[in-house]
Amino acid sequence: MGRIFVSERNLRFMLYEVFAAESLTRYPYYENHDRETFDLVLETAFKLGRDLLQPAFQDMDKAPPEFLDGQVKVHPSVKTFMKECGEGGWIGACAPFDLGGQQLPLMISASFRFILCAANYSASVYCLLTTGAAHLIEAFGSQEMIETYIPKMFSGDWQGTMALTEPQAGSSLADITTLAEPTDQGYFRISGQKIFISAGDHDGVENVVHLLLAKIKGAPAGVKGISLFVVPKKRVNENGELNSNDVNVTGIYHKLGYKGAPITHLRLGEGNDCRGYLVGEPHKGLFYMFQMMNESRIEVGLGASAIASAAYHAALEYSRERPQGRGVSAKDPTLPPVRIIEYPDVKRMLLFQRAVVEGSLSLLLQCSKYADMIRVSEGEEKERYALLLDLLTPVAKTYPAEMGILSVSQGLQCLGGYGYCDEFPLEQFYRDVRIHPIHEGTTGIHGLDLLGRKVVIKDGKAFAHYLHEVQATILKGQKVPALKPYSRRLEEAVTRLRDVTSHLVGLAEEGNQELFLADATLYLEFFGIITMAWQWLIQALPIQKALKDDPTEQEVQFYRGKLHVFRFFFHYELPKIEALGNRLMESDGLTVDMKEELFTD
Amino acid sequence: MGRIFVSERNLRFMLYEVFAAESLTRYPYYENHDRETFDLVLETAFKLGRDLLQPAFQDMDKAPPEFLDGQVKVHPSVKTFMKECGEGGWIGACAPFDLGGQQLPLMISASFRFILCAANYSASVYCLLTTGAAHLIEAFGSQEMIETYIPKMFSGDWQGTMALTEPQAGSSLADITTLAEPTDQGYFRISGQKIFISAGDHDGVENVVHLLLAKIKGAPAGVKGISLFVVPKKRVNENGELNSNDVNVTGIYHKLGYKGAPITHLRLGEGNDCRGYLVGEPHKGLFYMFQMMNESRIEVGLGASAIASAAYHAALEYSRERPQGRGVSAKDPTLPPVRIIEYPDVKRMLLFQRAVVEGSLSLLLQCSKYADMIRVSEGEEKERYALLLDLLTPVAKTYPAEMGILSVSQGLQCLGGYGYCDEFPLEQFYRDVRIHPIHEGTTGIHGLDLLGRKVVIKDGKAFAHYLHEVQATILKGQKVPALKPYSRRLEEAVTRLRDVTSHLVGLAEEGNQELFLADATLYLEFFGIITMAWQWLIQALPIQKALKDDPTEQEVQFYRGKLHVFRFFFHYELPKIEALGNRLMESDGLTVDMKEELFTD
Repeated sequence: MGRIFVSERNLRFMLYEVFAAESLTRYPYYENHDRETFDLVLETAFKLGRDLLQPAFQDMDKAPPEFLDGQVKVHPSVKTFMKECGEGGWIGACAPFDLGGQQLPLMISASFRFILCAANYSASVYCLLTTGAAHLIEAFGSQEMIETYIPKMFSGDWQGTMALTEPQAGSSLADITTLAEPTDQGYFRISGQKIFISAGDHDGVENVVHLLLAKIKGAPAGVKGISLFVVPKKRVNENGELNSNDVNVTGIYHKLGYKGAPITHLRLGEGNDCRGYLVGEPHKGLFYMFQMMNESRIEVGLGASAIASAAYHAALEYSRERPQGRGVSAKDPTLPPVRIIEYPDVKRMLLFQRAVVEGSLSLLLQCSKYADMIRVSEGEEKERYALLLDLLTPVAKTYPAEMGILSVSQGLQCLGGYGYCDEFPLEQFYRDVRIHPIHEGTTGIHGLDLLGRKVVIKDGKAFAHYLHEVQATILKGQKVPALKPYSRRLEEAVTRLRDVTSHLVGLAEEGNQELFLADATLYLEFFGIITMAWQWLIQALPIQKALKDDPTEQEVQFYRGKLHVFRFFFHYELPKIEALGNRLMESDGLTVDMKEELFTD
Repeated sequence: MGRIFVSERNLRFMLYEVFAAESLTRYPYYENHDRETFDLVLETAFKLGRDLLQPAFQDMDKAPPEFLDGQVKVHPSVKTFMKECGEGGWIGACAPFDLGGQQLPLMISASFRFILCAANYSASVYCLLTTGAAHLIEAFGSQEMIETYIPKMFSGDWQGTMALTEPQAGSSLADITTLAEPTDQGYFRISGQKIFISAGDHDGVENVVHLLLAKIKGAPAGVKGISLFVVPKKRVNENGELNSNDVNVTGIYHKLGYKGAPITHLRLGEGNDCRGYLVGEPHKGLFYMFQMMNESRIEVGLGASAIASAAYHAALEYSRERPQGRGVSAKDPTLPPVRIIEYPDVKRMLLFQRAVVEGSLSLLLQCSKYADMIRVSEGEEKERYALLLDLLTPVAKTYPAEMGILSVSQGLQCLGGYGYCDEFPLEQFYRDVRIHPIHEGTTGIHGLDLLGRKVVIKDGKAFAHYLHEVQATILKGQKVPALKPYSRRLEEAVTRLRDVTSHLVGLAEEGNQELFLADATLYLEFFGIITMAWQWLIQALPIQKALKDDPTEQEVQFYRGKLHVFRFFFHYELPKIEALGNRLMESDGLTVDMKEELFTD
């Protein structure tokens, strides 16, 4: 063990040289922190990852959670890890001091999580989910709720979940049927079932707190009738004791990967004794939940790129060590074999992986910084950050998710036959990473969200802010001779983005909603690649400066390597927008017009 | 069970309407067949697939082969299936009558195998491997060898394998070290080890016959010193009895997928009593083996597209049945939900899968037809077919393998969360299909093979034949008004292919071998997409005619559906060559110049 799963040098580069994380400490909310405390957070994460999570990585996959006598039994390290994270204050890291939090910027806690996800994705989600659920209570719950649940959740004693999906509804939340009947006791009587609930029950904690969507009896149809409830597995009575709340697990799913975390099927109120506590106002559940979903979506992006990071480092290690064959121009069989990292095709595969991993991380930290700025800014500035974050959330979820799969697949490919075998971790990474384009909204849903909602929101205000941000980076790039050709390429790409977008929005304005959204998934891919090019130019900027400051040989290698990946992205990945852009301009309704009956058997 | 895994209508369309399989029966070798016997073959395959293979599909994955006390124990259906195939004459289907074969065209036996691979890929390989190994003995073995091994292999009593890979050598066969010491008894004493040997041992057969590469003591270094041997697990003594031949399994690999077939690690001659029988002449082993590898590569393409076919049909079935949400322009939550097949994005995913599956099948049948024509033609004609087959083999292996992964992934995505769970077969297809870009030569190796060898072979003669074939299709397409724009698109693509190729070959001529081959993998992808567009145009041609012949409504739906997929390929997939072509023209050495030390941790 002790395999590298995240480049520490790169993470520091991103935080301090690219995104100036220390600058946040100028704001009162973050003023108790400085670079030293940030570094300590990273150090702790690497230590937890190495000592606690990574050693259980394969184990949790080989011995997945079991469902026995109505109980979900998980790997013993889950309990230890929840406790460690609770005691370290990591579950509530970003929350205010008065709630027991650390007031840490999201940029730093995102980095913390990135490290843990890379060490062992399944193990990392227990805490992440708890943080997300707690955040909803903090933001919209009553004082009593906060007092009842937050301390136990932050301490890692109670698990938090998001309980949305139902069997008949899937991604269509409008169709949920879980019912909340009002009582005169201050609570609602809940009945229904939820599926695909991550960490919906397990023996690593004392209690589970579901943040659950349901419909109050008589509520309007569709999404306007959805309310948010806290539904604990065990409810707290007047004496602070825990009693069953009639929430039952009926089974767990057997999955392709991500096996260390139990995904549960829950039945609520079978004994007519399941109590739910309304969060905020009735019928505003979806609005509240979206806050948590946005966070969760960033977490999915982090998880995907973290797995891709671990896969990349494993592939790099193998490629450095594995001798095989000779170079294409040196065929003399009596010469000793070369290591496969010397082959251009293997270098291409490794560069691709780095381009995906480090580009994704950059965008995710960019989004985290927007979230941090939302917390400390006001008025128009706050709105600007909120719009940017809103716009980029589907991209920051989907690009890492979709490209993470391809990245891990290339990592597996570097190992040849060994990549397919479980002696090496690649096959598990390959299974684990496949969940990400599915959970927290499928890629198709995010395409619709980006094009159908985020791009057109407030008359395109979010999109205008985005273009402005990218333009600012292009301008900086134009001033650096080595980056000028790349700035120009990005500028051309942005022009294309603007043209394609206005063509599509034009369709919507003509009332042609179906054509407008027909290729929304392709639009998301198109948008994602351009956004990555932007993030790579952002990363290239400080390097030019750093190289002039007489760095050590080792530092020079780091910077030169980054520049090589930067160039790789512009030469191998960015050109893919051409075909996507052309297709998006066609709008010929090819998929819209395909009749179901033409899919013959 | 009884799920559809292959479109029978499409297979018949390909065989009879596109490739005129009956026309082969004009040649004496195939004259005992007619369309009726061909149809019987397909029928048998569907029956075997449905009744024998598909029912064991999940079972063989959940209870993979076990290695116990030096023995490999496989699923009981393996033995039944080997026997059935042996008795039916399917293992030696293409071999001449005098060897016990059926003189069936490869096009038909490839269709047979496609069906079985789709029903249960792992189960299907036992027979395929035996056919391939037997074919080597038929082609290059002595009469005695033929008599000893072929009948038992064709009857399914003995398993055949290809034993190439060694731990220290991987894909670099020049570096194999398995030793063959001559004796004066007519055999060689073999010692060494082989890894990743598919079906290298199991209890479903009486004996295993390895077609094994080794070096005769004192042989020249590198590939010029490799010889081919028959090395049985048990050798046949004078009385026809079987005795141990000192070939031992030391373990099996635990894999991501394709779990129903044991991949073994073999040690030969530990007791100094392993006998190998030289096939053909010394030092010509690689030449002989290449014949079998070419066949195996076509088989890999078939396997990949067959798995993608099964995945597509499972995704189609789900998409037709699953209600969820409402159309983008019908948000009224009181309306009943629609089935997801009504969403353009789901239709896009399904069209993509069909485009990959049916396009790949077309190319594979095209290649099989070339192989059939090689058998029955002579002189220049024979050479032309041989060159075409040689050139297209890396494409017919890699396009289905690489795109099969993406196709299955889109199938999984159609099912959302259920695609990730083992209640549905998609997650297994996703694992199974990932082997294909690895075995029988990785994608990187095939890129080098296509560009570095096949394209330049005989001064580009194979490539010229290929261009001529494609041009002939374009000319036909130009005469059909509805296909004219697509013919033009294909013509532009071919022009691009010609330009890119001559640019790259120019680099080789200047002696810049490294730059020439640096992006060979991209070249293979580029070549593959254009070849698929050609195959889709080939498929579109007979449809235009058929639609004029007053077909039934059901037939019209089939043809219209095909045309829709054809258009899909040209609008969504073909445009991807633009970015690839541009990149290939750059030849800036970006990957060649990347120094290993710039991959910092």
